[in-house]
Amino acid sequence: VSAAVKAAVVGATGYAGLELVRLLAAHPRTKAPLVFGRPGDTSATKLSSIYPQIAGTEAAEFDEMLPLDFSQLKSQGVDVLFLATPHEQSREWVPEALAHGVRVIDLSGAWRLNEPANRAVYKFEDEGSESANRLQAQAIYGMPELHREKLAGANLVANPGCYATSIILALAPLVRAGVVNSERGIICDSKSGVSGAGKAPSATTHFMYAAENLSAYGIYAHRHTGELVEQLGVCRECITFTPHLLPIQRGILSTIYVSLKDGVSVAELQKIFCDFYATSPMVRMHRVGQLPQIQHVAHTNFCDIGFAVSPEGRRATVVSCLDNLLKGAAGQAVQNMNVVFGFDEAEGLR
Amino acid sequence: VSAAVKAAVVGATGYAGLELVRLLAAHPRTKAPLVFGRPGDTSATKLSSIYPQIAGTEAAEFDEMLPLDFSQLKSQGVDVLFLATPHEQSREWVPEALAHGVRVIDLSGAWRLNEPANRAVYKFEDEGSESANRLQAQAIYGMPELHREKLAGANLVANPGCYATSIILALAPLVRAGVVNSERGIICDSKSGVSGAGKAPSATTHFMYAAENLSAYGIYAHRHTGELVEQLGVCRECITFTPHLLPIQRGILSTIYVSLKDGVSVAELQKIFCDFYATSPMVRMHRVGQLPQIQHVAHTNFCDIGFAVSPEGRRATVVSCLDNLLKGAAGQAVQNMNVVFGFDEAEGLR
Amino acid sequence: VSAAVKAAVVGATGYAGLELVRLLAAHPRTKAPLVFGRPGDTSATKLSSIYPQIAGTEAAEFDEMLPLDFSQLKSQGVDVLFLATPHEQSREWVPEALAHGVRVIDLSGAWRLNEPANRAVYKFEDEGSESANRLQAQAIYGMPELHREKLAGANLVANPGCYATSIILALAPLVRAGVVNSERGIICDSKSGVSGAGKAPSATTHFMYAAENLSAYGIYAHRHTGELVEQLGVCRECITFTPHLLPIQRGILSTIYVSLKDGVSVAELQKIFCDFYATSPMVRMHRVGQLPQIQHVAHTNFCDIGFAVSPEGRRATVVSCLDNLLKGAAGQAVQNMNVVFGFDEAEGLR
Amino acid sequence: VSAAVKAAVVGATGYAGLELVRLLAAHPRTKAPLVFGRPGDTSATKLSSIYPQIAGTEAAEFDEMLPLDFSQLKSQGVDVLFLATPHEQSREWVPEALAHGVRVIDLSGAWRLNEPANRAVYKFEDEGSESANRLQAQAIYGMPELHREKLAGANLVANPGCYATSIILALAPLVRAGVVNSERGIICDSKSGVSGAGKAPSATTHFMYAAENLSAYGIYAHRHTGELVEQLGVCRECITFTPHLLPIQRGILSTIYVSLKDGVSVAELQKIFCDFYATSPMVRMHRVGQLPQIQHVAHTNFCDIGFAVSPEGRRATVVSCLDNLLKGAAGQAVQNMNVVFGFDEAEGLR
Repeated sequence: VSAAVKAAVVGATGYAGLELVRLLAAHPRTKAPLVFGRPGDTSATKLSSIYPQIAGTEAAEFDEMLPLDFSQLKSQGVDVLFLATPHEQSREWVPEALAHGVRVIDLSGAWRLNEPANRAVYKFEDEGSESANRLQAQAIYGMPELHREKLAGANLVANPGCYATSIILALAPLVRAGVVNSERGIICDSKSGVSGAGKAPSATTHFMYAAENLSAYGIYAHRHTGELVEQLGVCRECITFTPHLLPIQRGILSTIYVSLKDGVSVAELQKIFCDFYATSPMVRMHRVGQLPQIQHVAHTNFCDIGFAVSPEGRRATVVSCLDNLLKGAAGQAVQNMNVVFGFDEAEGLR
Repeated sequence: VSAAVKAAVVGATGYAGLELVRLLAAHPRTKAPLVFGRPGDTSATKLSSIYPQIAGTEAAEFDEMLPLDFSQLKSQGVDVLFLATPHEQSREWVPEALAHGVRVIDLSGAWRLNEPANRAVYKFEDEGSESANRLQAQAIYGMPELHREKLAGANLVANPGCYATSIILALAPLVRAGVVNSERGIICDSKSGVSGAGKAPSATTHFMYAAENLSAYGIYAHRHTGELVEQLGVCRECITFTPHLLPIQRGILSTIYVSLKDGVSVAELQKIFCDFYATSPMVRMHRVGQLPQIQHVAHTNFCDIGFAVSPEGRRATVVSCLDNLLKGAAGQAVQNMNVVFGFDEAEGLR
Repeated sequence: VSAAVKAAVVGATGYAGLELVRLLAAHPRTKAPLVFGRPGDTSATKLSSIYPQIAGTEAAEFDEMLPLDFSQLKSQGVDVLFLATPHEQSREWVPEALAHGVRVIDLSGAWRLNEPANRAVYKFEDEGSESANRLQAQAIYGMPELHREKLAGANLVANPGCYATSIILALAPLVRAGVVNSERGIICDSKSGVSGAGKAPSATTHFMYAAENLSAYGIYAHRHTGELVEQLGVCRECITFTPHLLPIQRGILSTIYVSLKDGVSVAELQKIFCDFYATSPMVRMHRVGQLPQIQHVAHTNFCDIGFAVSPEGRRATVVSCLDNLLKGAAGQAVQNMNVVFGFDEAEGLR
Repeated sequence: VSAAVKAAVVGATGYAGLELVRLLAAHPRTKAPLVFGRPGDTSATKLSSIYPQIAGTEAAEFDEMLPLDFSQLKSQGVDVLFLATPHEQSREWVPEALAHGVRVIDLSGAWRLNEPANRAVYKFEDEGSESANRLQAQAIYGMPELHREKLAGANLVANPGCYATSIILALAPLVRAGVVNSERGIICDSKSGVSGAGKAPSATTHFMYAAENLSAYGIYAHRHTGELVEQLGVCRECITFTPHLLPIQRGILSTIYVSLKDGVSVAELQKIFCDFYATSPMVRMHRVGQLPQIQHVAHTNFCDIGFAVSPEGRRATVVSCLDNLLKGAAGQAVQNMNVVFGFDEAEGLR
C-alpha cells in the first residue's frame, strides 16, 4: 500500500477528463496530479480557459496542460496515467506508457474485450497482433465490484463502458446466483444523458435535437454489448440492449427485464443483491419496493439498484442508475486506482 | 354522414381538454363547440384567463365556460360530448349524457375495459351493477386503426390510454399476424412527458423533481396494462409494462421487445405493418432501419412506428412515438368523432 | 388584391425555412409553394428526409427541393420568393430575383438597414455600390404594425430581426407618443431560445452548454441594434441591448426599461398601446398588471406585450414575448406577404 | 478562534437546508452537526427518506431529525444554529435561540432589513416591538465581502437574499468607488432557477409551467429590493429590479445596467473590482471582455462577475452569477459561520 501516488491525466479537455482532474485534485492520496495534452503538443493551454468553472478551486492548481512525453513519465514521478482519450489513441498510447513502467487506467473501449468477435466492432488497426494480444491478456476489466482481487496491483485497467456498468452491476448478482433464465432473453433498456455523447458538437448533441426529445439508437449494434456478454457470461443472443438519448446532462437509468427461475422469492433476490454488494461501498441497494432515479446518483459515484417482481413471480424488473461521467467513467477510474494501490475503495469518492 | 356536428367539451381546463377545444375550434365539420364547467357550476370562468395563449385564436371564440346541465344538451343542439374528466366523474356523467340522447367520447379510463378483473384497479363504485355492465357492453374502444367499423355510429366511445395507444399500435399488427411468440414475453418500456401526469401540482410534477431526471413507476401495476391485455388478446403474464417519467413536456416513446416466430423476415414484418396501416392516415410507418423519435410527433396526431430485428432474426424491437395529448388523448378523440360521424378520419388533424 | 399567389422558399432546411414551408402549405391564399435548394444544386433532397415530422402533412406535398434558377422563376409562376438564407446570399440573390420580376421577402439582415453606419457590422462586399444603394432605397422594413401602407405592393421586404421585432413592438408606441425620456437611456434585456442560433452544431448550441445555463453575449455589439436605432428613431447611445441564450427551444422575452416623462399615467400608457395596435391582429396587449410569458406565444405568430410602472410613476418596465421562428421570422414573413398582396393580415397565421 | 464548532440545522427538508447538511457534514471545522425538525415534532423522520441521494454519504451520518427544544441546545453542545425556515418562524425562533445563548445564522428574510419602510413588505407580527428592534440592531447582514469585520463573533447573522447577493456583489465596488450615476437609474434584470421558488409544489413550479418558458414576476415589488437599497446606499427610486423564472434547476444570473460618471476607463473599473475583492476568496472576477455564465458557478459557492462598457464609455453592463442554493443561501451561510468563528473564510466551500 502506497502512502500517496502521483497521477496524470491525458484528455482532460473532455467531460470525463475534467471530472478526473477534479477528483484527483481533491483526493487525499494523490500528489499534485499532472495534466497532459497530446504527445508533442507544445501549445500551453490552460484547463481553466476551457472550463472557467474550475478557476479558484483545487482543480485549478493543475491548470497547465503539459506536453506528453512517455519517456519522461517516470522522471516526472508519474505512478499512474489515466487515459481519457478515444480508443484509437488508447490503443497506441497504452503500450507506450506500460513500456515506460507506468500503470495505466484507460477509460476508452480499447482494452475491455477479450474475445476477438466482441472486439470486431472497434476495427482496431493492430487487431490480432501478438503484442496487442499480450497486452489484452494483462488488462483487467475495471469493475471493482466484480474484479476487486485481480485489480489490486494491476498494470493495465480497462475502465468499463458507462452503459455496461449500469447493466452489469444490475445483473451480475442474479446471473451468478443462477436465478435468471437467460435463455429466455434479458432485455436492457438504457437511457443516457447527453454528456455520454461527448463534447464535440454534432447534429444529435444540438440542443434543438436533444431537448424535448427521446430517441433510441444503436439497436442490436452498440459497442457495449460485448462487455455485457463477457462479464455476465451469457450468450449474445440472450442479451438485447437498446440505448436512448435522454434530454438531461448527466446520468444513466437502465431498466432491465429478466425471466426468473421457478420458486425464487423477492426476499431471496434482495438477499442475493445485498450479499453480493455487502463489501461494495459504491453500490446502494434500494429496499424492496423502492426504485432508484437519476437525480439520486447525479454528481455521485454511486450505482443505485432496485427491483420489482411480477405478481406471479416469474419476471423481475431491475432498475439501476448512475452518473455516466462518474461511476460510468471518471469516478470508477478513481475507484480502480484506489483498488490498484490498496487505498480505501471509496476514498475521494464520497 | 352529417354535414357538421355540434360538439361540447367538459374538462377544458386540463391539458387534454384545452387541446380538444383547439382542435374542435379549427375543425371544418364542427359547429361552434361549447365548453362546459362542472354541473351546476355557475362561476363564469373564461378559458383564456387560465390559458392566455388562446386569446385571439379561433379557440378563444369558445371562451366562456357554461354550466353543464345534461337535460339541456339536446336543446343546446349538442351532438357529441367529450369528457376530459377523471374516471370517477366519467363513470357518473356518461350515463346521464347518453340518457339524454347525446353521444359521448370519454377520455378517461372509465369505460375502456371489458373484463372485471382488468377493471379492478379502478375500484369503480358501481362496479358490477347491471346498468354499468349494460353501458360497458355498448362502449367501443376508440382506436380507429383497430375498430373503425364498430366506431361508425357508436354512442359511447372509450378513448384509449396514452401509453396503451403507443403500445397497441406497435404490437397489434404483429400479434394479429401471428408472428410473435407472446408466451416468451412482451416487454413494453414506455417513457412519457410530464403533461401525462396532469395539471395538478405535485411532488413528481415539480420542475426540481422532473427536470434532469428519469424515474420508473407503476411497475407491474399500471392501469393501462388491462387495455394491452384486452386489445392484444395476450395473457397478462405475457405483458410487462414499465412507464417512466421523462423530463419533457409532451410525447411518449415506447420501446417494445418481442420474440419472433422462426423464419419471419424483416421484409415480411415491414409488409405486415404497411398492410395493416394502409388505410390508416394517422399512423406513419418508418422505413426499415429508421426509428421514430418524440420530436417527429410532438404537436401532431401521428403515431410513428419503426422496428429493428436482431442479427439472428429471432428478436424484434419496435419503437413507437406519439404526442400523449393528441394521438394519446384529444387528437384520437377527434379522430374517433370523425369516424363516428362518417367524416374523413384525419379531418382537422393534419 | 390577388385571389392567390405562388410562393417559393429558398433555405427550407433551416428552422425558419421549415416554418415557412409549413405556413405556406396550409395558407388558404397560396398555391402549391415551391421549395428551392441553392442555384445549380442538382441533388434532389427531400425535405421530409431532413424533417421526418412533416411526412404525411400538408407540408410534405412540397417535399422535393428543386434547383433554383432565377431565369425560370417567372415561367414557374412564382409571384413571391422567400429567402431564408444567410445575409451574404440574400445580398447576392435578391437583385437576381427582382431583376426577373419576382417579389422578394428576405428573412436575413441584408436589406434591413438604411444607414451605412448601422450596416457596417455586416461588412457587405457590395457596400456602397450604386446598385445596392438603389435596392436598399426600395426595401421596406417588414413590420406591418409600423409600415403597413408602404408594404402594400412592395417588391422587396426586409423581414426584421427576431430580437428587433420583440423590442420595437414594445417601444414604438411609447416613443412615437413622446412619453419616453430616451436620453435617460432605454435598456433592452432580451432572452432567446436556442433555435435563434441556427441549425449548425456549435459549441454554444451543444446541449451540454445550453441546458441548465444562461449566458449573455454580444453586449454593445449585436447586429440588431441598428434596427432599433432606425425604427425607433433614437440615438445609438440611448439604446442598450443585451441578448441572452435561454435553455429553451423557441421564444424570446424582452424586458425593457424606460424612463417616463412627468405626469404620464398607467391608463394613458395602456391607451397608447391599445390605440397603436387597435388594427394589428398579431399583437396582443395584456391588461394592466398582467405580463406575457414565452409559453403564451410559442408556436404562434403573436407578439404579446404587457407593462408595469414604478410606484413613483417615472419608470416603466415593458415585457414583450414572441416566437422567434414565427413572429420573429417565418410568421412575420407570411404576415408581410399577406400585406404585400392585400390579403387579410392574419390569414394563415392563427 | 475555535478549533471546531457544533452546528445544528433547522429546516433541513428544504433545498437550502439539504445543502447546509451536506456542507456541514463535510466541513473540517464542524463536529457532527445536528438536524432538527420543528419544536415538539416527535416524528422521527430520516432525511435520507426524503433525499435518497444522501444515503451512503457523509451527510447521511446526520440523518435522524431530532425534536427541537431550545432549552436543550446548550446541553446538546450546539454553538450555532442555522435556520432554513420561513421568515415568520425565524422571527419567532431566533429570539428563543439567542436567549439560550446559541448563535444564529438565519437564512430567511426576517432580520435583514434595518429600515421599517423596507421591512413593511414582510408584515411581521412583532414589527416595531422593542424586543424586535433590539434584535434587529444586533443582526449583521451576512455578506462577508462587505461586512467581514462586523461578522467576526456576531451572535445573529441575517443571511442575504439570493437575488440580493448577486446584485450587491456586482454593484457595491462601483457604487462605493463613486463611479456610478445612481440617480440616472440602476437596472437589475435577474433570472433565477426554479429551486429559488422552494420545494412546495405550485402552479409556477410545475414542470409544464416552468420548462420551455420564461416569465417575469414581482416587478417593482420584490422583497429583496430593500436589501439593495440598504446595502448599496442608493435611493429606492434609483433601483429597478426585475426577477425572472428560468427553466433551470439552480443558478442566478443578474444583468445590471449602470450609468458611469464621466471619464471612468475600463481599466479603472477592473481595478476597482479587483481591489475590492482582493481578499475575498468566493468572488471570481472575470478578465475584461469575458462574462460569467450560470454553468460556471452551479454547485459552487462562487459569485462570478464580469462587465462590459459601451463604446462611448458612459454605460456599463455588469453580469454576475451564483448558485442560488450555495452563495445565494447555504454556502454563504457556511461562509458566514467561518467568519463568525474565525475559520478560513472559504473552508469547506471549495
